[in-house]
Amino acid sequence: MRKLAPGRLVLATHNAGKVREIGALLTPFGMDVVAAGDLGLPEPAETEDSFAGNALIKARAAAARAGLVALADDSGLCVDALDGAPGVYTADWAETPEGRDWLLAMTKVEHLLAAQGPGASRAAHFVCTLALAWPDGETAVFEGRCAGSLTWPPRGDRGFGYDPVFVADGMDATFAEIDPAEKHRISHRAAAFAKLTAACLEDRL
Amino acid sequence: MRKLAPGRLVLATHNAGKVREIGALLTPFGMDVVAAGDLGLPEPAETEDSFAGNALIKARAAAARAGLVALADDSGLCVDALDGAPGVYTADWAETPEGRDWLLAMTKVEHLLAAQGPGASRAAHFVCTLALAWPDGETAVFEGRCAGSLTWPPRGDRGFGYDPVFVADGMDATFAEIDPAEKHRISHRAAAFAKLTAACLEDRL
Repeated sequence: MRKLAPGRLVLATHNAGKVREIGALLTPFGMDVVAAGDLGLPEPAETEDSFAGNALIKARAAAARAGLVALADDSGLCVDALDGAPGVYTADWAETPEGRDWLLAMTKVEHLLAAQGPGASRAAHFVCTLALAWPDGETAVFEGRCAGSLTWPPRGDRGFGYDPVFVADGMDATFAEIDPAEKHRISHRAAAFAKLTAACLEDRL
Repeated sequence: MRKLAPGRLVLATHNAGKVREIGALLTPFGMDVVAAGDLGLPEPAETEDSFAGNALIKARAAAARAGLVALADDSGLCVDALDGAPGVYTADWAETPEGRDWLLAMTKVEHLLAAQGPGASRAAHFVCTLALAWPDGETAVFEGRCAGSLTWPPRGDRGFGYDPVFVADGMDATFAEIDPAEKHRISHRAAAFAKLTAACLEDRL
């Protein structure tokens, strides 16, 4: 696997929270992380129907425009009984004319599950896909998962997105109730980063 | 209290289920129940913001047009944490361009409760208000309640409306899971009918 050389890396996200979180993970490896928004790069449309497809769109676009290696993240919640929905539409389900309403998105999931009757499986998993793209066109993709189940009503005010209804297997608290450090230890994003680190960075420490 | 004389009574509802249920309750008292729809009476608009107000609109309109004593029912679910909503709008919350969707209505309640956080009270009660109107303008109103709490996800395929999420105090099963005879023994409608019977029919047995 091609290694990440120390130096500048452009993070193909316009989410300030992700920039902070991913930046903190990469800095110890000698990476100088800069956000796509800070370079004036546009956000490409996420037109694929897979996490990897969308992450690659973002990483390739940023690498080509910035002339730097780029890292993109695409992630979401997949509900077993809904055939993996909302999946790549995780954020779309929260969109309203007034902005994102995650409670609305969580309620849509409950509405669909309730339509299947009280016996519907509440199993779900978060997926995080990280895509690396080099300016010469080479790419690499790393996927992490975190399995769990959905609870209702939502609990906790940490985290974001569907965190208040997601309970990881083996836990009682939701992702919005646990300490962020604990979440980052077991999360889908942590799992994806562990793979990326092992493949592209490990010999750096 | 004015008594109900044996004879014809017009039931001011266009709901076939209610006509059957209420007809069965009144027949033993010598009442000959005829539905408003069978007399060609229109459904007046329910413009009041109370169950009693709407029941009186329906009973008065039917009594005046039919020249018979009329009985109307207005009922709904009141959720404590929602200041009594949906209340008189119980059926309205289920309206969609394609007809009534009770699962949608139940989901709206969950959405609003979830917005109050995990500690929101799930206490609720069903209310049934029966209004009698005589052709001379005299009226009487009887209200019955059934206290309980809301469960999620919905369970059971009996009953109608919010029954799959309503658990009466002291029970474990929802109104949509229990035997209809059991529901009719403890329901808000039974409580209202007991009052009506005691006041207007009891000396008839």
